[in-house]
Amino acid sequence: MPKGRGIRRITTVMNRLINSPKGFKAAGVHAGIKNQKKDLALVISDRPAVAAGCFTKNRVKAAPVLLDKEILTEGRAFKGIVVNSGNANACTGKQGMEDARAMGRKVAALAGCQPEEVFVCSTGVIGVMLPMEKIISGIDLAWSSLSSDEESGIAALEAIMTTDLLCKSAYEELSLNGSKVVIAGMAKGSGMIHPNMGTMLAFITTDAAISGSLLQRALSGAVEDTFNMVSIDGDTSTNDTVLALANGMADNKAIDFDDESYQAFSEALMRICRKLAIDVARDGEGASKLMEVVVEGAETMADARLIARSVASSSLFKAALFGADANWGRILCAMGYSGGAFDPDGASIALSNSEGREGLFMNGSPLAFDEEAAKRILSQKEVRVGIRLGSGAGFKATAWGCDLTYEYVRINGDYRS
Amino acid sequence: MPKGRGIRRITTVMNRLINSPKGFKAAGVHAGIKNQKKDLALVISDRPAVAAGCFTKNRVKAAPVLLDKEILTEGRAFKGIVVNSGNANACTGKQGMEDARAMGRKVAALAGCQPEEVFVCSTGVIGVMLPMEKIISGIDLAWSSLSSDEESGIAALEAIMTTDLLCKSAYEELSLNGSKVVIAGMAKGSGMIHPNMGTMLAFITTDAAISGSLLQRALSGAVEDTFNMVSIDGDTSTNDTVLALANGMADNKAIDFDDESYQAFSEALMRICRKLAIDVARDGEGASKLMEVVVEGAETMADARLIARSVASSSLFKAALFGADANWGRILCAMGYSGGAFDPDGASIALSNSEGREGLFMNGSPLAFDEEAAKRILSQKEVRVGIRLGSGAGFKATAWGCDLTYEYVRINGDYRS
Repeated sequence: MPKGRGIRRITTVMNRLINSPKGFKAAGVHAGIKNQKKDLALVISDRPAVAAGCFTKNRVKAAPVLLDKEILTEGRAFKGIVVNSGNANACTGKQGMEDARAMGRKVAALAGCQPEEVFVCSTGVIGVMLPMEKIISGIDLAWSSLSSDEESGIAALEAIMTTDLLCKSAYEELSLNGSKVVIAGMAKGSGMIHPNMGTMLAFITTDAAISGSLLQRALSGAVEDTFNMVSIDGDTSTNDTVLALANGMADNKAIDFDDESYQAFSEALMRICRKLAIDVARDGEGASKLMEVVVEGAETMADARLIARSVASSSLFKAALFGADANWGRILCAMGYSGGAFDPDGASIALSNSEGREGLFMNGSPLAFDEEAAKRILSQKEVRVGIRLGSGAGFKATAWGCDLTYEYVRINGDYRS
Repeated sequence: MPKGRGIRRITTVMNRLINSPKGFKAAGVHAGIKNQKKDLALVISDRPAVAAGCFTKNRVKAAPVLLDKEILTEGRAFKGIVVNSGNANACTGKQGMEDARAMGRKVAALAGCQPEEVFVCSTGVIGVMLPMEKIISGIDLAWSSLSSDEESGIAALEAIMTTDLLCKSAYEELSLNGSKVVIAGMAKGSGMIHPNMGTMLAFITTDAAISGSLLQRALSGAVEDTFNMVSIDGDTSTNDTVLALANGMADNKAIDFDDESYQAFSEALMRICRKLAIDVARDGEGASKLMEVVVEGAETMADARLIARSVASSSLFKAALFGADANWGRILCAMGYSGGAFDPDGASIALSNSEGREGLFMNGSPLAFDEEAAKRILSQKEVRVGIRLGSGAGFKATAWGCDLTYEYVRINGDYRS
C-alpha cells in the first residue's frame, strides 16, 4: 500500500453510517482471513427488508454474486448481508458456491430466517478457497457485536475495505409526507485494481417503506448514472455488487407508485450513489486527481454516456492530467473513438475548477488559450472537463475518473510479487 | 524521447524497402516542419497503380484521411503517396482540407497526373496549420531526389517516423505462375501516443498485377487480423491509415479471381501486415515487452478477437506483465468483460516463450503453478499468453500488445509541457 496517505476517517462519517437508518445494526470484526485487519462485516435489519441489487456484467462471476443474483427475487424479504474481505471466493468452482451458501446459512441460523434471505458478498484475492472455519467463527463474533452505535458502523465500513485509502460513506435524510426517512450507504473499491482486491461493493440501507420493484427501479437508475460512469482503468471486476435494503421502519406512507415521494426518494438515492461513486474515483489506484467529465448537448443519452466514459477512461488523457498538460487533442480523440455520435465541427472543450475556466476548443476549432492558466487548473486535485456538443438535443452525462500515475504502475506491477 | 534507445536501423531493412518492387521510387527529405529531422516522403510508381486503403474509424478524422477516402474509388489508377510528419493536419477545418488538396495538387503537377491520383497522409501535432510554403518546397526537393536505391528507401522510412524508436519495414517475394512478385511495406507508429504523433501509418507497394477490388479484399482481411489486433493503450488516432499500391510491373498473369495466385498473394500481404503490426506493438510507447495473446477454441471469430484484444488491452495485466507477475486473475477478468462469449469453466490459460511454458489455469480451475518459472517467462522481451476455450468450435485469434511502464506515464504525462 502506498506510503504517506493513511486511511482518512473523516468526521462526516460519524453518526451517519450504514446502521443509522431505523432498525439496522452492523458489525465489523477480524475473522482471520486477513492479517490483523477487520475482514468480516454484518448488516442486519430488525425487520425483514425488501431489497434491490445490481451486479457485475463480467462473464466471470464470483460465487457470492451468483448466489445473490439467484436469491434476489421479487416479493422476498431479506434479513441482511454478510461480507468478507481478503478473499473474493471467485474462480473457486463448486466448493466456492458451497462456501458462499454456508456463509448465508450460518447467518440465517443466528437470525432465525431462511438462508435465501441473507445476501453474501466477498472481496479479495481470487482462486483461493475461503477459510470457512475462520469465517464461521467470525460470523458468530460479528453477530454478538451487532449494534446501531457509531463504533459498529465504522467497524463494518473498515471490514469491507481492501486497498482503499478513503472511507466511503454517504447519508441522506428526507421528509416524506411528514415522516423522516434516512438512507445511508457505504462502499469499498479503488478501481478494478489488484485483481479483485479492487472489487467495487456498495451497500445501501434505508428505513423507507417502498415496494421492492420501485426500490430496484430507483437503484438501477442511480447505478447507471453513478457507479457505471466511474472508470479507473477500464477493468470490471468479477465481484462488483450494489445492494440496497429497505425495511419500512420509518413508517412513511409506503412508496408504491411513481409519485412525488418516489421522486424524492430516488433523487436522494441518486445523491448517495453519486457520492460513493465519486469517492471510488477519487480513491482510484495511485490516483492523485479526480476528473469529472461532463458532456452536454448530445443527440441521445447513450451518446452522452459513451463520450463521457471514453474521455474519463483514456490512458492518454489520464496521463496528460497527471502531467497537468492541457492536451485537448487527446480529449477530442477519445470522443472520436467512443462510439458515441457527434459532429466534431460542433464540439467545444473547456477545463474548469476553483482555479477558473479555460476554453481549449470551440465549435470544431482550436482556441488560442492561456497555457499557464490551463496548467493551474490541471494542477488542482479536482478537474472538470466540460464538453459541449452542437446537436439540437440536450442530452447530458457525467463520468468520473482519475489520473494515470507512476504509482498506478508501481502498485499494479508489484502487487502479487 | 526516452534516452538510451537509439533508432535501430537494422540490416534486414536494407535492399528490402518500399521502393524495392519494380517501378517504385521513394524519397525522404527535411522540409522544415520538424526541427532538423526528415519530415516529408514521397512514394511514386512509374506506372499508374491500383490502390486499396483502410482508414481510422475515429469519428474525428484528419483532413488527409477525408481526402484519401474521397479519392479512393474503384477503377482509378494512382501515381503515388505524399506523406509529411511533424503535423497531423487534424482539427484544422476548411483550411486543413484545402492544404491537403494542395499537397496532392503539387505532386500531381510534378508527376503529370490528376490531383485525385495522389494520396496524402500527415502525422504529428494536431490543431496546427501546415506550413504550406515549406511543404511545397519540400515536395519539390523530394521529387528531385526520387530513386529506387536503398538510401532513398531508408530516407522515406525515416521521414514518416515521429516518436518511433524502431524502423518498421517488411518484405516478401513470391512466385506467381513463374513471375517473381515483390511486396514491400513500411509503417510508423508506437501506439496512439502523443496525440496523433502516435498515428499508425502503413504503406505497402507491390509490382503484382492484381485487380483493385481483390487488392482491397486482401488488404481489408490482412488489416483486420493484424493492425486491428494491436493495442498499445486503447486509443485510436484521428489519422490512422493503411494504403497499398499495386502497379502490375511484375508482369504476372493478372490476379482477377480468388484463385491460387490470389491466395498466395494475400497470404504474403498478411505476413507483411503482421510483421509491421507486431513491430508497432513492440515499439509501444514506453514498452519494455511484447505480448502476444492467442485465443483458441472460441465459438465465433468475433468472440476470439474480442477476448484476445481485451487481454492485450487490460491496463491491469499490462502492468502485471511489466512487473513479471503471473497474475492470471487479471487475464480471466479481462476475458470476462471483453464482451466475447465463453464458458469460464472450460477456459485454460498458459504463459510461454523461449524460457518454457507454464499453465496457470485449467478448465476453470487454478493450477498450482511454479511461480519462479512463470516469473522467468514473464521477464523475457516476448511473452505469449495462450488461452484455450472449451467450445466445440475452433475459432482462433491473435492480438498483440505491450506492457504498461513508468516510461509510458512519464512520456505521456510530460509530452506537451
